[in-house]
Amino acid sequence: MRTRDPLILGIDLGGTKILTSVISPRGEMLSRDHSVTPAAKGPDGVIQAILESADRALERADIPIDRLSAIGVGAPGLADTEAGILYTSPNLPGWKDVPLRDIIQEKLKKKAFLINDGNAAALGEYYFGAAKGTSHFIYVTISTGIGGGIVVDGKILNGSKGMAGEVGHMTIADEGPPCHCGNRGCWEALASGTALAKAAQKRIEAGADTTILSLAEGKIDKVTAQTVQTAAEKGDPIANELILKTAYYFGVGLANLVNIFNPEMIVIGGGLSNMGDRLLQPAYRVAGERSFNRAYRMVRFVRAALGRNSGVLGAAAFALEEMKRTTKLH
Amino acid sequence: MRTRDPLILGIDLGGTKILTSVISPRGEMLSRDHSVTPAAKGPDGVIQAILESADRALERADIPIDRLSAIGVGAPGLADTEAGILYTSPNLPGWKDVPLRDIIQEKLKKKAFLINDGNAAALGEYYFGAAKGTSHFIYVTISTGIGGGIVVDGKILNGSKGMAGEVGHMTIADEGPPCHCGNRGCWEALASGTALAKAAQKRIEAGADTTILSLAEGKIDKVTAQTVQTAAEKGDPIANELILKTAYYFGVGLANLVNIFNPEMIVIGGGLSNMGDRLLQPAYRVAGERSFNRAYRMVRFVRAALGRNSGVLGAAAFALEEMKRTTKLH
Repeated sequence: MRTRDPLILGIDLGGTKILTSVISPRGEMLSRDHSVTPAAKGPDGVIQAILESADRALERADIPIDRLSAIGVGAPGLADTEAGILYTSPNLPGWKDVPLRDIIQEKLKKKAFLINDGNAAALGEYYFGAAKGTSHFIYVTISTGIGGGIVVDGKILNGSKGMAGEVGHMTIADEGPPCHCGNRGCWEALASGTALAKAAQKRIEAGADTTILSLAEGKIDKVTAQTVQTAAEKGDPIANELILKTAYYFGVGLANLVNIFNPEMIVIGGGLSNMGDRLLQPAYRVAGERSFNRAYRMVRFVRAALGRNSGVLGAAAFALEEMKRTTKLH
Repeated sequence: MRTRDPLILGIDLGGTKILTSVISPRGEMLSRDHSVTPAAKGPDGVIQAILESADRALERADIPIDRLSAIGVGAPGLADTEAGILYTSPNLPGWKDVPLRDIIQEKLKKKAFLINDGNAAALGEYYFGAAKGTSHFIYVTISTGIGGGIVVDGKILNGSKGMAGEVGHMTIADEGPPCHCGNRGCWEALASGTALAKAAQKRIEAGADTTILSLAEGKIDKVTAQTVQTAAEKGDPIANELILKTAYYFGVGLANLVNIFNPEMIVIGGGLSNMGDRLLQPAYRVAGERSFNRAYRMVRFVRAALGRNSGVLGAAAFALEEMKRTTKLH
């Protein structure tokens, strides 16, 4: 760190965890604070937890708050970057039209910026990770749900009000299973970790001969994507079949992204990407079978490079870029 | 027209028709030449027809070719704008990697630009039609197939090699009918005019009690989307049902575009859009049921304003903008 570097406080608000970090313009994380999101306490409780986490991150970096140039907040759900409002969040009960940016700004007395978590992670990979040097790429996170961030000509695709990029909620099977968003057959309802766990539970209930249940302490509601993965690693054929089906659906959605965006790169992050080739290779194959050959051949599919830090790094990078942009304008 | 206006020759090459026009910067068409695309003659025959059409358009406008600033060519299929190459075109048999831009440029001795026809039509509506004043919109054409052009921040979404925007080939039903692109369950395979005609033929073959066949001279292979429309207008319940099903699929794809792009506007053009409310209102309703409410509420769905001229006007506008851009650069 150079002593005059503008430092940014990055905040990655998730449905289960909060990660806060003091970050340099080159993506060095000078401190980290992990804490649990007290989601059940609603917006007030969660915001309190964010502020306490921010204090600890600053203290650990031994940085007075005055030394910060700005704060970047990544948050899950429908985040309006321009207005700084988190409209709704499937993983944060009770959040409705919360002016999160301005609240953080007032409490910490620092210029703050709000960005959707998928977009933040995309920017993290773009500035510091797997997508460095590209200008057209899509970041896809496959975990509990499927989210993403789309970068076009080096800029996040925000759409008219910052709500673009909800790739997890494109229909890939019009008569598919219901999705919590209200639609049916969404990519997320078919290819996420939740979808995989549900499919496994169904097979078990239907009497399938599989080791999955015993790996979940014999309790069907304890079957997760992770349980299926463990069973597959041990050679359970049903588990393998379930993962192949998830890979198939994941590939169908990837094909759509290839045909719609003709990206240079698709970066895959999120918990399920840790399944690696078992999930990803068959998914890429399906994507190849279902998209335009010429567009498919030029896409590089790569794993995210920053792991759990892509969101917080991206939120910080976003704040820094916005500061530069607005400073230039005024 | 002011006498020093830079004039552009617009060429809209389609699978069945060629439209050529001398166009002013304000979108005035100083002449028009319509001709039939001799598609069966392959690239050489088609290019010859384009050149003859260009001659007639110039003659009718009484404009010497030296008076032109540039030529804009819109073409169907995978068009690489940067390289000026039309890689393949589903509607132009025998076209493979044709350097159409350079051929036109050499033959007519004028700077030329190549753009995909869906993108051209989007730009036409953007500069001169329904999408004037917006900066995030999607043009969707529903006719024999489904095509489109996506405008992000006032610029065509090209992707990394100009192949973005193939919205007609996003999968909306993973186990749906085969599409000529090699995929299954594409939007185009379910919601286009061709899909509607096929669905009607199937119902007739299955013995449905409908007037559609008699409107097609009793010949099943003469049943088109137009026949179904005529039958529906006369109150045929099967025809109405078929159109509602097409509207349903059209709406599923629109919902995807709303969720992925959060556009201000979706402009609907193409032959089937002439069915009007019978097709479009139910489609918009389905789109509303299947997309994020907040994103849906802000989209304006509108009919294209330029009809068959959007492509040729957009190709000309594109050439003019590219001329300005490259002139600034040099």
